[in-house]
This record gives sequence, structure tokens and C-alpha cells, in this order.
Amino acid sequence: MRELEERILHEGSVRPGEILLVDGFINQCIDVDLMEKMGQVWKNYFADQKITKVMTVEASGIAIAALAAKELGVTAVFAKKTETQKIHDDRYQAQVYSYTKQKEYTIAVSKRLIKPDDVVLLVDDFLANGCAMLGLCEIVEGAGAKVAGIGIAIEKNFQKGGAMLRDKGYDVCSLARIDKLSPEEIVFGKADA
Amino acid sequence: MRELEERILHEGSVRPGEILLVDGFINQCIDVDLMEKMGQVWKNYFADQKITKVMTVEASGIAIAALAAKELGVTAVFAKKTETQKIHDDRYQAQVYSYTKQKEYTIAVSKRLIKPDDVVLLVDDFLANGCAMLGLCEIVEGAGAKVAGIGIAIEKNFQKGGAMLRDKGYDVCSLARIDKLSPEEIVFGKADA
Repeated sequence: MRELEERILHEGSVRPGEILLVDGFINQCIDVDLMEKMGQVWKNYFADQKITKVMTVEASGIAIAALAAKELGVTAVFAKKTETQKIHDDRYQAQVYSYTKQKEYTIAVSKRLIKPDDVVLLVDDFLANGCAMLGLCEIVEGAGAKVAGIGIAIEKNFQKGGAMLRDKGYDVCSLARIDKLSPEEIVFGKADA
Repeated sequence: MRELEERILHEGSVRPGEILLVDGFINQCIDVDLMEKMGQVWKNYFADQKITKVMTVEASGIAIAALAAKELGVTAVFAKKTETQKIHDDRYQAQVYSYTKQKEYTIAVSKRLIKPDDVVLLVDDFLANGCAMLGLCEIVEGAGAKVAGIGIAIEKNFQKGGAMLRDKGYDVCSLARIDKLSPEEIVFGKADA
């Protein structure tokens, strides 16, 4: 998605540790127009799937999910993050390891909010090591529902998450795929749409 | 807003401690159509204000803010919650006491994301004691910007937040105002729109 790549080049900034800061339009500040266009691209890309729900994990995926859901004419659901591992009978949950925070946390969705006949588009702002997204897949499949595909705004090709998810057979549509990230340059690979 | 009151009556459930659970359409599961209508109501209510930005605090306010921003044709920004009190030069921040969790936390917005000429509509899913909303007001005014008003989905009239904010002169537009909340009945007062 050319527009997203251009916004990253002009408004993103690179911080130590291969961190790409896009809080001016993707996370923290939400550019509604851009997110609607992202939703349209995923709608076209996944047009052969009868998507019934969009799902993400809090917090920076929520606006992306809400606006993608609007484009698709469905509802959005977000998984909540907690630090407790306690099992609750009334929710689907998965353990996720955060490399950034170097600790494990739990993501969970109430069982009332996802049904076996749901066909779910998973979305998020970034795809790096893929742990959070894999946890979302576990939750959807644990509910007996189907993962229609995965929509990502920005994929870091130099981290293993995208390859891992594609190897498992998930259809990942990343709108910007970054091969190289340094304060001097941002090099894009071919995006999925 | 009659539609919101009806959804609360039909789909909400009351838990001990005067907790109203609306995760099936407001938080966790996001009913995009309903949130668009909420955004339209606030757009009409605050029509005399030249709103430049919608702001909320993570996580359950984000979808509401994104869809209200869409209706208003502006961007949305959300304040992040952290448990550290460290002062950062590059962000506006406020201390907020959570009665639910019985601890203080910090909410913060990058200084790059709010400017003195901004006219900000603050929104959130619930208004109870008003601490988080007061923190958002502090952040906006700390940036030299103006609070256009406060848009709330559900106000608990039996808690002090709404009166406190209105006493301070803020124009609060709550779409459903609950006088009494018990497992047996939910009694609404007159909503602001």
C-alpha cells in the first residue's frame, strides 16, 4: 500500500533497537482516513472469505480493527491483556511472550463474543515475532471458529513472525513490509497489497 | 440516546459492585454502527465548537474515539496508561487514581500529538468518579489547548464524576445516564442527547 509506505517514510522515525515510531498516524494518534483505506484494501484482498468479525489485541490494534470492521460491515472484538495466568471458564485465552517487555502475559476474549461459526479477520499494527498474532489464532481456533486471514499494517520482514505465520498456512496481508530499518534508511520489500 | 438505553436494557448485565457489563457492544466487542451514531450525536451536540481532535484514554475508549473522529472529520489520539510516575519532557501527563484497582497510574500523550490551537472533544465509554476524564482535561489544558466538551456513552449519575466535571464548567454530553443500577433494574435519568 503505497500511501502507507509514504507516510512511514515521511512521518515515521526510527529509534534504537529497530523500533519504528509511527505514533503520529497509526498508534496513539489515529488517522481515520488512512485506516479506512487500510480496511478497504483488506476487504478487497480477503473478498473470497465471508468474514463475520474482526479481531485484534489491545491497545494499538483497536482503532485499526474498528475501522476495518466498519468497511466490512461486521463487528470488531479485542482481546484483553492481563498479567495473570488464571484460567477462567468463561473466556478463551492464550499465553503470549513479549520480547519487548521480556515477560509472558495472557490475552483473553469472553466466550460470549466469539462463536464456532465466526470467520475472523485478525488485524494488528505491527508484525514482528508474531507471538501476539499466534495467540489470537489460538483463541479463534480454540473457539472452533475460522481464521479468515491476517491483516497487518507494518511487517518487519527481518523478524520471524511473518514467515512463521505463513508457514502455518495463514494468509497474511501486510500493507507495508520492511526489509531494513535504521535511522539512515527504511527499505521496503514487496507488500502483500 | 434512546437506542443506547435500549441496548443497555436488552444486552447489558449488572454485576456486584454496581458494575454494568456492556462488553457485547461497547467495550471488547465493538458495534461499529452504534458508535458511528454516537459520534453523530456528539457532532450535532457540539456543532458550535470547531473541534480539531478527539481524545480518550486506552483501551475501551479507543474505538469510540476513532468512530467519533471519523464523523467529525478529524484525527483521534489516545492517552497511554503506565504505572510509572517518571516525568518525561516529551509528553504531557496526569496522575489518575483508579478506584477499581485502588492504585494511582499515569496517563500520558506525546507533546507532538497535541498543540495549543487544538480544540479537543474528550470521549470515554463510562463516567463514574471522573478521575480519568479529569486527567485528560489536565493534559489538554497543560498543552495550552481547549477542551471543547466531554462525550460519554454511559454516565453513572449515582457517582460523583459528572457533577464534578459540570461544576468545573465542562460541557458533558452523556448519551445514557443511569440513576440506579441493580441486578433487578436499571433506571435511566434524562440523557444529555
